[in-house]
Amino acid sequence: MSVTAAAGFVAAAGAVGIKADGAPDLALVATADGRPVPAAGVFTSNLAAAAPVQVSREHLVRSAGRAAAVVLTSGNANAATGEAGVHAAKGLCEVVARALGADVLEVLVCQTGLIGVPFPVGVLDAAAGVVSARAPGEEAGRAAAEAIMTTDTVRKEAVVQVEGGRGPCVVGGMAKGAAMLAPHMATMLAVLTTDAEASPGTLHALLRDAVDTTFNRVSVDGCTSTNDTVLLLASGRAGPVPGDRLGAAVGEVCQSLAEQMVADAEGATKVARVVVTGAASDADAHAAARKVAGSLLVKCSLNGADPYWGRVVSELGSAGVAFELDRTSVSYGGIEVCAGGVAAPHDVRAVAAHMAGKVVEIACDLGLGSGEGAVLATDLGHGYIDENRTTS
Amino acid sequence: MSVTAAAGFVAAAGAVGIKADGAPDLALVATADGRPVPAAGVFTSNLAAAAPVQVSREHLVRSAGRAAAVVLTSGNANAATGEAGVHAAKGLCEVVARALGADVLEVLVCQTGLIGVPFPVGVLDAAAGVVSARAPGEEAGRAAAEAIMTTDTVRKEAVVQVEGGRGPCVVGGMAKGAAMLAPHMATMLAVLTTDAEASPGTLHALLRDAVDTTFNRVSVDGCTSTNDTVLLLASGRAGPVPGDRLGAAVGEVCQSLAEQMVADAEGATKVARVVVTGAASDADAHAAARKVAGSLLVKCSLNGADPYWGRVVSELGSAGVAFELDRTSVSYGGIEVCAGGVAAPHDVRAVAAHMAGKVVEIACDLGLGSGEGAVLATDLGHGYIDENRTTS
Repeated sequence: MSVTAAAGFVAAAGAVGIKADGAPDLALVATADGRPVPAAGVFTSNLAAAAPVQVSREHLVRSAGRAAAVVLTSGNANAATGEAGVHAAKGLCEVVARALGADVLEVLVCQTGLIGVPFPVGVLDAAAGVVSARAPGEEAGRAAAEAIMTTDTVRKEAVVQVEGGRGPCVVGGMAKGAAMLAPHMATMLAVLTTDAEASPGTLHALLRDAVDTTFNRVSVDGCTSTNDTVLLLASGRAGPVPGDRLGAAVGEVCQSLAEQMVADAEGATKVARVVVTGAASDADAHAAARKVAGSLLVKCSLNGADPYWGRVVSELGSAGVAFELDRTSVSYGGIEVCAGGVAAPHDVRAVAAHMAGKVVEIACDLGLGSGEGAVLATDLGHGYIDENRTTS
Repeated sequence: MSVTAAAGFVAAAGAVGIKADGAPDLALVATADGRPVPAAGVFTSNLAAAAPVQVSREHLVRSAGRAAAVVLTSGNANAATGEAGVHAAKGLCEVVARALGADVLEVLVCQTGLIGVPFPVGVLDAAAGVVSARAPGEEAGRAAAEAIMTTDTVRKEAVVQVEGGRGPCVVGGMAKGAAMLAPHMATMLAVLTTDAEASPGTLHALLRDAVDTTFNRVSVDGCTSTNDTVLLLASGRAGPVPGDRLGAAVGEVCQSLAEQMVADAEGATKVARVVVTGAASDADAHAAARKVAGSLLVKCSLNGADPYWGRVVSELGSAGVAFELDRTSVSYGGIEVCAGGVAAPHDVRAVAAHMAGKVVEIACDLGLGSGEGAVLATDLGHGYIDENRTTS
């Protein structure tokens, strides 16, 4: 159960010929009745935004935050494809709109795959066939989550239930986690649905907050894809839910999807949680955690299970945040290895045992204030290079 | 010939027991008569600056930009070593000052190696012996350049001759290029000498410019070491040289040393020159070139000899500079593969042949203005990871 868990949504998936191997490459999430509902989107900050990002942004603005469907394709990013790419993305929306009896501006589009390859518009006819087979229920949702996979090895789904004014309400979602993970198949895509009742403005505010504290706190290679998109549609079938409660549920779904993406990061052998406390501000703490999490040297150390904290303090010192070495401490798995900016006596075997595990906890205290932040990271091993050195 | 090429300088090198394998680990560059001369330094921006950086900065300030010697050690970075580390770095300076009959404030110190390991102060006695064996000439210079190597496979030296008012004048230098290259042995260190006559202020201004356009335009892993130091001493023996001519010579020596470091980057199989033109400003061009050069995905593509320009435009679009995809073009080895933001028809075999070479040229034109910049980069292969995954 994922995007079809919330009342009022259906899904579909199929192979339309974008992927050469004939695997499923088109997914649809739509309202059950084909009518538009409040919707919100958060998109990549990359100025080389792909055609589908341009089109979805435009549609959300022109529809005043309402959508009846999201169409997603995998195998071609439709990025750096010029006017023809925009035309192709709009063509996909038109096919869906026709099938649903919706306005084209009420259809959003997400695409993922290689950048700079013209989109094969010949697949549009086949797309109509997939859309017509949309259905409610778990199976349809699962098929959609599978059709958006590229280098992912498992589908990513999450569902959270929350108590609303008129009874239980559901937030569900699916994602594909090439993201910053195995990004030659550019992109992190996620679609969330809920049966809570909420305005487009409310949805946008809580989606932005949720993305900021979940997907934006994952660091694999620091690359910002041309296609990153997170969408949220609210059918309203379950009635209103207090905003903070709905926000928490959306955040939980995003967090689960983000963790699933990190766990599936290709070529990665470990997940590290980098926590920074004692920073001058939360913003400083996040920036410092991101710097440590993004460091090639720290990632190499993680790969080698080497507790070389010197690299951690070196990254903290060049993170562009308030920092005083002699107030800084570093712990691995709760065992302090650096205190007051110098080596601390510690149980070497216990640290080695922690570093050898699949999940490593790196905690840094800057000793300056109460700012806190955390970022999930992966290690850097041969697998990442092997996955990304060629696109063929 | 390197640091001893300019008239008025001597050098020494030896093994004092910092490196466990007994290899040379201490080098000295000093004025021939032990008297101080105008000097300047450029240091790491890392707030976790190592003890030798703190000490050298302080000495240069308190001596008003005069130095009689530079002592360099390899095998221990003396970083994140607290008060004891500062004491040890000063102790090294004192040993040298005593041997030379100089003031301790006239001795500068550079160190490179592992971070966070207490410096073995027991080596100070042996250091005095090395210093007393200082000598002029090529052999002494070469020995010094070799003693500062850590993971370097070749020593790095450069000499440039320039015409001064009273005849030829020389700028020479040596460097060790772990820098951003194989940085578990933290640090890029360089010492330059000249027999030109110049004030400390002039030296500082032209050294800063030279570093900014050479060492700061190299990107291997984007890590800013705790120990990075570039020093320049001027004996004045050859008389005055017009400032721009001296600046150009210092820049040439720095550029040569920077190129030698990139070429020796461990684990790297290729060197890429990323050139950005048509940017809104030179600053934008450099930022964009640095973003492309620092991209893990671009580095992986280089390793695989894959001309995947989609990653290049994706990095340009997220570099934080003025950018319009439809004005952007990308060429490999002079062959345009992307024009107007979309794929350009090109000779695929010719591009493949260029990518297969040891030196790759990636040229990006942003079509917005006249800003230009270039950065040297390396690829990312298994070797980098193997070199950096453990410190043992």
